[in-house]
Amino acid sequence: MPADIAPIAIAGATGAVGREALRILESWGIPADRLALYASPRSAGIRVPYASTNLTVRALRPGDLGRHDLVVFCASATLARLHVPDAVLTGAVVVDASSAFREDPTVPLVIPEINAHLLDAAPRLVASPNCSATILLTALEPIRRAYGITAITVSTYQAVSGAGQRGLDELRAGAAAALVAHPESPSVFPEPCAFNCFSHNSAVDPDSGLNVEERKIITETRRIWNAPDLPINPTCIRVPVERAHSESVTVELSQPASEHHIRELLAFAPGVRVIDDRAANRFPTPRAASGLDEVLVGRIRPVPHAPRDHTSRSRAHNLWICGDQLRKGAALNALQIARILRPALCAPPTPISRAAITHPAIA
Amino acid sequence: MPADIAPIAIAGATGAVGREALRILESWGIPADRLALYASPRSAGIRVPYASTNLTVRALRPGDLGRHDLVVFCASATLARLHVPDAVLTGAVVVDASSAFREDPTVPLVIPEINAHLLDAAPRLVASPNCSATILLTALEPIRRAYGITAITVSTYQAVSGAGQRGLDELRAGAAAALVAHPESPSVFPEPCAFNCFSHNSAVDPDSGLNVEERKIITETRRIWNAPDLPINPTCIRVPVERAHSESVTVELSQPASEHHIRELLAFAPGVRVIDDRAANRFPTPRAASGLDEVLVGRIRPVPHAPRDHTSRSRAHNLWICGDQLRKGAALNALQIARILRPALCAPPTPISRAAITHPAIA
Repeated sequence: MPADIAPIAIAGATGAVGREALRILESWGIPADRLALYASPRSAGIRVPYASTNLTVRALRPGDLGRHDLVVFCASATLARLHVPDAVLTGAVVVDASSAFREDPTVPLVIPEINAHLLDAAPRLVASPNCSATILLTALEPIRRAYGITAITVSTYQAVSGAGQRGLDELRAGAAAALVAHPESPSVFPEPCAFNCFSHNSAVDPDSGLNVEERKIITETRRIWNAPDLPINPTCIRVPVERAHSESVTVELSQPASEHHIRELLAFAPGVRVIDDRAANRFPTPRAASGLDEVLVGRIRPVPHAPRDHTSRSRAHNLWICGDQLRKGAALNALQIARILRPALCAPPTPISRAAITHPAIA
Repeated sequence: MPADIAPIAIAGATGAVGREALRILESWGIPADRLALYASPRSAGIRVPYASTNLTVRALRPGDLGRHDLVVFCASATLARLHVPDAVLTGAVVVDASSAFREDPTVPLVIPEINAHLLDAAPRLVASPNCSATILLTALEPIRRAYGITAITVSTYQAVSGAGQRGLDELRAGAAAALVAHPESPSVFPEPCAFNCFSHNSAVDPDSGLNVEERKIITETRRIWNAPDLPINPTCIRVPVERAHSESVTVELSQPASEHHIRELLAFAPGVRVIDDRAANRFPTPRAASGLDEVLVGRIRPVPHAPRDHTSRSRAHNLWICGDQLRKGAALNALQIARILRPALCAPPTPISRAAITHPAIA
């Protein structure tokens, strides 16, 4: 890598996920001179505020990404298929937040809280999972480790940011129009999204009736947990929320568990925060989860009629989960993977010690 | 009943449910002179447009309701407990849309599509069920009759109109504030409801973890279906939608069923409309359901890993249901009950036949 090439490339830097990646890198104290930003030609030349400076966005062209040490790919799966293989071949380590390589058995699919060990082999390409799956599994992992999970039923309440900045814009414009009874003209989504809910806007398989989002939850969960036959029953719904996804989840367990112990497991789990105050009716909300790194979990309770053991521990529990799909559901998870693969690049510069400044001769 | 007393009283006529009841009665062609409107003292004197005239709202006082033949009670459970017993004792037939008498074993709890036979005994007081339960059971009844239902898991996406006109006002004010980044000040709900989802705002039982809405779905479903031990696992969530509730439902069946036959049963069921177009990604939405009498059903599909028989019929299916909670979930169901109890009062005046006009001597 030539000395004038920044070591970290962010591809798709002007999209919703790319912007979030920059916010996270800034909060991690990564200097601007480590970053090169790429986006589509129409975004070339845009100057993006970062720390106390501005970074200029370049048009992404073939061959660009391979010149960098680390690439965080935040653009579409179509663009990932076009640019990522070449970047890997020419020497970059790539973390891809798109769906392009998630089903490729040679590419590790990683949520660091669950299967960071797959990064020990120093893979050149790692895929970050689907947002709904990442949020779900981050919350369920402590329960799976302790009790085993035998089945999952999940209904999602997904934010429009899953469709990127255009989805966000369409929700806000639609809400403003609806409030004054003006007609809305949805283009990103098949239905007006303001004050509405609708089945996820991905293609529906004519035979199984599953849409693509639901299929991703099933296949990615099974890959990440290495549980190829785990029964998973997802229903994916969009709701008029800006950026955090919510999920109403029922898990069936191999061993019965007390509600108390599940709450305790989650309270000490990495990447999870429990909000579960029955007396105050305070539980997770997608607005509270927005901008947070942690996945919020509450409404922890046994399924009313699930089998119990003699100490009243239940074989099935419900949870209500909210997680920022742009953070843990996308940019944060990808950057957590990147930080494990390239720790020095993803850490702030080592501060020069006071001793080194005042006593240069000692060094 | 004195000749100058209108035969039908609407109690709570200025609330969200009462207003909807008036819209339905108007669409049924019920003349204004059959109606007396009651509300709280602060609404007394309000003139409500109805057909081509205006009806004046009176303050509801003890003894008022018993003077009418039929009372449709659309105010709160607290007021129902205060006014309904006296109205029944003094001769009125009362249909109560509140929760006041739903658990009273002497009061029939009726969804006409399911248990209209309970009205054969000419009860003086009938309760109309909870909105979420009514919408759910109207859609599931044809499946239950054909195959038997052994368990239900349901996650709701409930509109703010469940909290009445004040809920609707808070959503619109909150959305307007959020769009310009002004602070919102929720008072009806515990959380900002614009661009948010939150666990249903009813009290949560400290032991079971169920909130009151979830408990209602369980107890009312069991009563209506006469299935005292049916396992029901509800999670009730509010979403920023104005008036129709949605429900993501998994039903387990006594006998395996094909997806095709379930769709056919629902297509011919009273009070149900199937919208289930996989190719066009067209399914029910709460906005499409708003103002409709029918409950919309779609996303009909077998649970991916449910047991199948030799012809691939499944023991468990998913459905996505949307129903107007002010119509079938409240006012419409109550008026459908009223129409069975007092058919002449709830039908338009018999038109004078052409023969009677031109040949009076024949009669």
